[in-house]
Amino acid sequence: MDIHRLKALLAQVADGSTPVDTAATQLQRLSHEDIEYAHIDHHRSLRKGFPEVIFGAGKTAEQIIGIMQRMAEQESVILVTRIDADKAAAVHAAIPDCRYHEDARMIIMQQSPLPDTGRGTIMVVSAGTSDIPVAQEAALTARAMGHTVETVFDVGVAGLHRLMAHHGKLGTATVIIVVAGMEGALPSVVAGLVAAPVIAVPTSVGYGVSLGGLTALFGMLSSCSSNVAVVNIDNGFGAGYMAAAINRRPE
Amino acid sequence: MDIHRLKALLAQVADGSTPVDTAATQLQRLSHEDIEYAHIDHHRSLRKGFPEVIFGAGKTAEQIIGIMQRMAEQESVILVTRIDADKAAAVHAAIPDCRYHEDARMIIMQQSPLPDTGRGTIMVVSAGTSDIPVAQEAALTARAMGHTVETVFDVGVAGLHRLMAHHGKLGTATVIIVVAGMEGALPSVVAGLVAAPVIAVPTSVGYGVSLGGLTALFGMLSSCSSNVAVVNIDNGFGAGYMAAAINRRPE
Amino acid sequence: MDIHRLKALLAQVADGSTPVDTAATQLQRLSHEDIEYAHIDHHRSLRKGFPEVIFGAGKTAEQIIGIMQRMAEQESVILVTRIDADKAAAVHAAIPDCRYHEDARMIIMQQSPLPDTGRGTIMVVSAGTSDIPVAQEAALTARAMGHTVETVFDVGVAGLHRLMAHHGKLGTATVIIVVAGMEGALPSVVAGLVAAPVIAVPTSVGYGVSLGGLTALFGMLSSCSSNVAVVNIDNGFGAGYMAAAINRRPE
Amino acid sequence: MDIHRLKALLAQVADGSTPVDTAATQLQRLSHEDIEYAHIDHHRSLRKGFPEVIFGAGKTAEQIIGIMQRMAEQESVILVTRIDADKAAAVHAAIPDCRYHEDARMIIMQQSPLPDTGRGTIMVVSAGTSDIPVAQEAALTARAMGHTVETVFDVGVAGLHRLMAHHGKLGTATVIIVVAGMEGALPSVVAGLVAAPVIAVPTSVGYGVSLGGLTALFGMLSSCSSNVAVVNIDNGFGAGYMAAAINRRPE
Amino acid sequence: MDIHRLKALLAQVADGSTPVDTAATQLQRLSHEDIEYAHIDHHRSLRKGFPEVIFGAGKTAEQIIGIMQRMAEQESVILVTRIDADKAAAVHAAIPDCRYHEDARMIIMQQSPLPDTGRGTIMVVSAGTSDIPVAQEAALTARAMGHTVETVFDVGVAGLHRLMAHHGKLGTATVIIVVAGMEGALPSVVAGLVAAPVIAVPTSVGYGVSLGGLTALFGMLSSCSSNVAVVNIDNGFGAGYMAAAINRRPE
Amino acid sequence: MDIHRLKALLAQVADGSTPVDTAATQLQRLSHEDIEYAHIDHHRSLRKGFPEVIFGAGKTAEQIIGIMQRMAEQESVILVTRIDADKAAAVHAAIPDCRYHEDARMIIMQQSPLPDTGRGTIMVVSAGTSDIPVAQEAALTARAMGHTVETVFDVGVAGLHRLMAHHGKLGTATVIIVVAGMEGALPSVVAGLVAAPVIAVPTSVGYGVSLGGLTALFGMLSSCSSNVAVVNIDNGFGAGYMAAAINRRPE
Amino acid sequence: MDIHRLKALLAQVADGSTPVDTAATQLQRLSHEDIEYAHIDHHRSLRKGFPEVIFGAGKTAEQIIGIMQRMAEQESVILVTRIDADKAAAVHAAIPDCRYHEDARMIIMQQSPLPDTGRGTIMVVSAGTSDIPVAQEAALTARAMGHTVETVFDVGVAGLHRLMAHHGKLGTATVIIVVAGMEGALPSVVAGLVAAPVIAVPTSVGYGVSLGGLTALFGMLSSCSSNVAVVNIDNGFGAGYMAAAINRRPE
Amino acid sequence: MDIHRLKALLAQVADGSTPVDTAATQLQRLSHEDIEYAHIDHHRSLRKGFPEVIFGAGKTAEQIIGIMQRMAEQESVILVTRIDADKAAAVHAAIPDCRYHEDARMIIMQQSPLPDTGRGTIMVVSAGTSDIPVAQEAALTARAMGHTVETVFDVGVAGLHRLMAHHGKLGTATVIIVVAGMEGALPSVVAGLVAAPVIAVPTSVGYGVSLGGLTALFGMLSSCSSNVAVVNIDNGFGAGYMAAAINRRPE
Repeated sequence: MDIHRLKALLAQVADGSTPVDTAATQLQRLSHEDIEYAHIDHHRSLRKGFPEVIFGAGKTAEQIIGIMQRMAEQESVILVTRIDADKAAAVHAAIPDCRYHEDARMIIMQQSPLPDTGRGTIMVVSAGTSDIPVAQEAALTARAMGHTVETVFDVGVAGLHRLMAHHGKLGTATVIIVVAGMEGALPSVVAGLVAAPVIAVPTSVGYGVSLGGLTALFGMLSSCSSNVAVVNIDNGFGAGYMAAAINRRPE
Repeated sequence: MDIHRLKALLAQVADGSTPVDTAATQLQRLSHEDIEYAHIDHHRSLRKGFPEVIFGAGKTAEQIIGIMQRMAEQESVILVTRIDADKAAAVHAAIPDCRYHEDARMIIMQQSPLPDTGRGTIMVVSAGTSDIPVAQEAALTARAMGHTVETVFDVGVAGLHRLMAHHGKLGTATVIIVVAGMEGALPSVVAGLVAAPVIAVPTSVGYGVSLGGLTALFGMLSSCSSNVAVVNIDNGFGAGYMAAAINRRPE
Repeated sequence: MDIHRLKALLAQVADGSTPVDTAATQLQRLSHEDIEYAHIDHHRSLRKGFPEVIFGAGKTAEQIIGIMQRMAEQESVILVTRIDADKAAAVHAAIPDCRYHEDARMIIMQQSPLPDTGRGTIMVVSAGTSDIPVAQEAALTARAMGHTVETVFDVGVAGLHRLMAHHGKLGTATVIIVVAGMEGALPSVVAGLVAAPVIAVPTSVGYGVSLGGLTALFGMLSSCSSNVAVVNIDNGFGAGYMAAAINRRPE
Repeated sequence: MDIHRLKALLAQVADGSTPVDTAATQLQRLSHEDIEYAHIDHHRSLRKGFPEVIFGAGKTAEQIIGIMQRMAEQESVILVTRIDADKAAAVHAAIPDCRYHEDARMIIMQQSPLPDTGRGTIMVVSAGTSDIPVAQEAALTARAMGHTVETVFDVGVAGLHRLMAHHGKLGTATVIIVVAGMEGALPSVVAGLVAAPVIAVPTSVGYGVSLGGLTALFGMLSSCSSNVAVVNIDNGFGAGYMAAAINRRPE
Repeated sequence: MDIHRLKALLAQVADGSTPVDTAATQLQRLSHEDIEYAHIDHHRSLRKGFPEVIFGAGKTAEQIIGIMQRMAEQESVILVTRIDADKAAAVHAAIPDCRYHEDARMIIMQQSPLPDTGRGTIMVVSAGTSDIPVAQEAALTARAMGHTVETVFDVGVAGLHRLMAHHGKLGTATVIIVVAGMEGALPSVVAGLVAAPVIAVPTSVGYGVSLGGLTALFGMLSSCSSNVAVVNIDNGFGAGYMAAAINRRPE
Repeated sequence: MDIHRLKALLAQVADGSTPVDTAATQLQRLSHEDIEYAHIDHHRSLRKGFPEVIFGAGKTAEQIIGIMQRMAEQESVILVTRIDADKAAAVHAAIPDCRYHEDARMIIMQQSPLPDTGRGTIMVVSAGTSDIPVAQEAALTARAMGHTVETVFDVGVAGLHRLMAHHGKLGTATVIIVVAGMEGALPSVVAGLVAAPVIAVPTSVGYGVSLGGLTALFGMLSSCSSNVAVVNIDNGFGAGYMAAAINRRPE
Repeated sequence: MDIHRLKALLAQVADGSTPVDTAATQLQRLSHEDIEYAHIDHHRSLRKGFPEVIFGAGKTAEQIIGIMQRMAEQESVILVTRIDADKAAAVHAAIPDCRYHEDARMIIMQQSPLPDTGRGTIMVVSAGTSDIPVAQEAALTARAMGHTVETVFDVGVAGLHRLMAHHGKLGTATVIIVVAGMEGALPSVVAGLVAAPVIAVPTSVGYGVSLGGLTALFGMLSSCSSNVAVVNIDNGFGAGYMAAAINRRPE
Repeated sequence: MDIHRLKALLAQVADGSTPVDTAATQLQRLSHEDIEYAHIDHHRSLRKGFPEVIFGAGKTAEQIIGIMQRMAEQESVILVTRIDADKAAAVHAAIPDCRYHEDARMIIMQQSPLPDTGRGTIMVVSAGTSDIPVAQEAALTARAMGHTVETVFDVGVAGLHRLMAHHGKLGTATVIIVVAGMEGALPSVVAGLVAAPVIAVPTSVGYGVSLGGLTALFGMLSSCSSNVAVVNIDNGFGAGYMAAAINRRPE
């Protein structure tokens, strides 16, 4: 339950539109709610400004549905990451009011529109066409968290003039997410051009010594540019979330 | 040359206090300056808001001195990282107007005071006493870049109440740098408590399967908290720089 | 053959209810029994208090059935680990008197109830919902070995208050098994709160640099808490077995 | 401050032998004490039955001395691990009332004798002569924590009859610590002989593919015996501590 | 073409039973024969006492058939390794005069019986039931090369008495092949009991840190017994071949 | 657009056969063309002498078709690498004027014959039959780029006389590509025989410690012959491209 | 002995200036010369156009001197690589007619000037000042082999305009050697700008996940530019040798 | 105590030259002898034909001396491996009757000449001059165990004709030890030429991706020749021991 929903509930109690018992029942789950297979952290929205996000891998569709249903009573927006098409179909059948993004393998359930909460624009840049799914996951996450996002795809370092065509736009972003596989060189080049913080996302695109993304990851961590920090391989979600945390406007 | 120095120089030309030839000589090196062993990127301050930083490892004292002397003509603050005490003594002998920080293995040469350029406070938290040198490198870097920094040391997860004693302060920081070796669990815990972005710095403190910091690094990248991004092992400098980029007040 | 069965058999010989020849036949296999593809260690129950456990991976259903049938003549309880649903169905068809636990991928054949053999309660704690199958394998193993087990699931370090709600119960356990994937931070935190020994089980839950559980494993081995020892990745069985060995009441 | 010291202090307050103010000063540091470079966790003895242990690596002699002096006011026994001879000499000069064990690289400061707190005997077994320093670290730790310890050294698997000569003794231990480098096979063999829990400690003894102990570690984690759990490479201290936690007599 | 076939052919030329032209055609391929996708090394039997062995992985059934057909004109025995059941069926359809061993994934085509060429008995020992396929590959190879082989399966170190039951037999073997997965401890124990050379074969049996057999491999290479040499993971074929080379009776 | 096509277009403008507007439309895409999922680098032919090559892995058939259609308007030859048979069938259905090479997993679309652009012959040598697909990818690439290529397959170091039969031919090549899996020893041997540059290509052929080609790769990089440079595992395409760059006749 | 020296020797025999016996003595060592600790390959100059190069690491000064003295009788130029200053001093004392290059750790003994044997200019580019020693090793090697070499140092990707200032020169080189540590991104960028072959040399400059140069190496092998091949970490010598092989003018 | 010494002792008892008590004292230590830091396995000579060998690394000089003194009473020959010059000097001072081989880092104490116990000649071949110390360790070991050994050094694959000059000798050896660093290709080539078993020894000679010998090791394990088995990196001792086990003449 985020701060806006909490204040609204208390206002309803104050004006009598919600009975005390109803409010009490809801608030007693404010810390966390225990179900058989999960301790849902309803307090997270208050503490961190955004509710718990459901990591879909390794959970059954039934577990995901159960968690979403409890969360839906308390939260405006619910995200499920790393969920494949089959499980997503089962979830959608049970909870029609959500949308599956197949390339990014995410479910987003947006119960009410979010206000823009950002200080500026978040830019998402990808090195290759094969990196787009991860870049989309980042963009969708940041948008779901109430931020303005722009994307530029396929501007790898083997043809620098393609990146340079977007030089101006890069200079105005508050945060830049750079997604790249193979040698992962793009974040160093982008970060060398701007003062803004760069969140680098290595992808598992490549073969042989790309080692499932480890080479891109290590390259990004060893970047000769300093305004760079890195998230896990293929972790578009984490990059979008971190960028949103950086771009968040103080209340 | 940063934007303030550049404007000041042009003002001096405008009012005649600096002859055109003198200014031209200085400005023709604005892009970069070639010396035998380096292409010094004098343009970086303009482009990125902070001058090139000298990576001390693998350079001779002579090379470091040479680069610092050229930079000193153009920049207000010069940083040298990863420089051991012997080389630092040689540098200090040649350039007395700089200070060596032994624990952080940094030289800082501050030719003029920097204005506070931050949106808020940067907090630096370390898990153990043995992690302090890396935490100091982060704090010194961010301060040298014009930011307000607070530090809390030795609050590892084996005794959580020590961290909790600083809970309030953590909630007010704009960015938090968390420095930890061994299992590297502290960033997950800290990030779980706050909405602000967390820059995690793994250290090489530990032995056996701590693998020189790889275990802490991988743990931080695999964090179950999402407002976390990571820099290279023992890279306190990079964490301080990234935190400064995030905390920078728009002009 | 465990010590109770052995004594019972000898008592039957003493009172004449079992003929000497029948007993002799059974006892001559007491050391180990040779079948084409296995040397079944029937002596293990006497030596170690619990019979050999069948590692299902890499064995055919026929081999598993053959070994179980020989063991069933001597042992009260038989465990098969790491057996997938298809093989389990074939085993169940041949030996209906056993039960398959699909999430834990175990077969348990309990021919007679075991007395409680423990000094206290074994607690099994998991960091996430996706870690439950491994946690179940641990709990099932310890229960099959005659111990009282309690479970708490999904109390990861990103929301510490969920764990703290179970603080009291943790303090009373004789042994605690902590199951976690990703960064594997939970055992350090739990062990920091209690004096009891903690068996940490890394899981392969995660992606990218979680490296199939190696990161959680190395994190647990590098724990800054000292009352922690670790078993192999996803080795819920081993954790349950080790916890039972620790919790065993001296006879 | 452990529970005995705490009760004694309160008794002194009760009988007037300690003034209220004196006791209050001491008790206000009960949670943790802040010094410049450390948050000393004085609460740990109460919570875990044994005070914080000082990890010597990466700390200066001055830091170690400072922490020991604060702890000495509250604790009966203080351990410093992984401290080399030079630093130990500096510590000893400042705090003569402590003893350095050079092979185990430990300082032990025992201010008052500890009662035997164990349920039985802890046995420490090493595979080779070169593994003795790690085995000694384990034995010293468990003894410092108030347990009875027996040691058997150099009984590696290349000459099994040497181990078998101690078979009887092994069968009576409550916990067995097995220390081995190279292929690390000894814990599997020992655990196959007994019902007691085995704590396996890999050492960095070996060369080439022993990989600094990783091979022994992985071998121990892959053990075909199930009553085995493992600690970090060369972590004799952790093995001794874990064995003590297992062997602790309930109060 | 081996030395026996070569002499027989020349004898036939000498007695006129084979025309010179026929013999010449065959002998001109004695060095190697070029087909589109292979240079078949027909000289190998002469040089090494055994013909080239076909590595089935990565070859099409057509390629395997083509190579076998050329070899069949020159060699008494042909081996194909690492060939799955589907490809083997296609090969068998084209060349009915060969036999597929499914557990060992080998095809053996024995055109004429081989004389016993060994100095003594080769013993093949496996640690577990799951290791049998690799052990069978070793046994089949050595037998196909004309050696006497005995096998003992499932005598792992967790129950040493099972191995000890075969102590006598082990002492009489000329060479011992020991096959083991998981921690790979069995070769050290076996080699500690005998003077004969031991060929250790690590298998990929295990999970987690068994790392697909790397842990067993490294353990065997780090063996504290010295009469041990090692072959690649799951390389039963290589172990059988090497054992045959060792056991070969000088002519 | 390569330099020949560019000159032809300008000549058509000069002689009036192409209207200025038509040419202008085409030339304004000369730098790069933006489509939804790609920035196609049409300038690459001019800059590098060969157009962008499409990395098929991770792209949908639709994306590949879209990129090929845009490129077909500007380029004489288009390559798609790492494309499996299913996707290739979809591409072929949409663009019939291209050919799929199944073993090399490449699509080649050759709109007009290329002149021979080489200084001499490129030789492609493979160690085993299983390495042929990678060798074919190298040969097809270099031929598509306008070079003369000869191939020799299955001449591994276990039967050196097979390689020696081609010694003369090796001595006359301008560049030699050597493709090998397993221990990857062939490039060292070939490079020891000739003065020409050798491009070594490790393949993933092998098992166990061949580690998916890493062992061959590291062996080749550690070669005791010095006229060797290496490309990524299974990167036949890169080897062919690099050989073509070396063999390119100056214009 | 290279082809020029060989022809000269034969000419002297032809005109009687060298007696037959003297020439015979020298020619009988043409294949290789056996000394106690080495088989010197005197045939290599004839076969490969350049004599054997002495790998200094792991050899004693005495061994190096002994080999050099034998080679000096046959070769015009002798190279020793990876020789530290102490050994080099001992060599220089015994063979004053050679020169030690300390930064590149090479000894070069040039007995007669070499003719320019190249087709064009070899360019050596380094990313950072710390990479210069490796770049110098490459440049010295290629020059010693008779090629024209130009160098550009410290043009890393964090400030692309520095590299772009040399764009023209890069376009005219026959081969480009690119030396870089850390993330190793420079070769991709350089190769994206030119059609010439690029030899990439990873260096061990960096820390943490630069992993002693593995990250730069893997990045270069995963390059999204295709005209790149790679040599071992810090192998400036190999890069210089390979570049010379590529640039060699046909005779 | 080996079988010869044992028989001699019993003969002395039989003829009265040794009193029963003296013999009894010695024989009661026949199994193993316990000293403070070692269980000396005096039974090993009887069981394995050669006494325990002392692994010098990680032992103090005092421990080595103590063990040697006990062994000297029972054994004809004593070996200490991996002992550096300083410790060796201390040992030599205490036990003058032994010899230190500095390049092989071994001490050999030969109390009486050994009879030749071999079936034929063991050949030791090294790829480079830098590999000689490991090759010497192998040769010294096999000679100390009573075998005839021949050596050929520096015949690496970059100049095959050097190896071919010894082709005849290779064909007559009973066992061949091949020692090589870098890419480790020599064992494959040698094994391809002969029928005898080849023991391959990888060395740590090399740099960068030679990874301290892992690359040579993995290459040797992946050898395309089948009569090859491998020992640990730099383990010349193990290779010599294994070769002796293979070459041992049956009694």
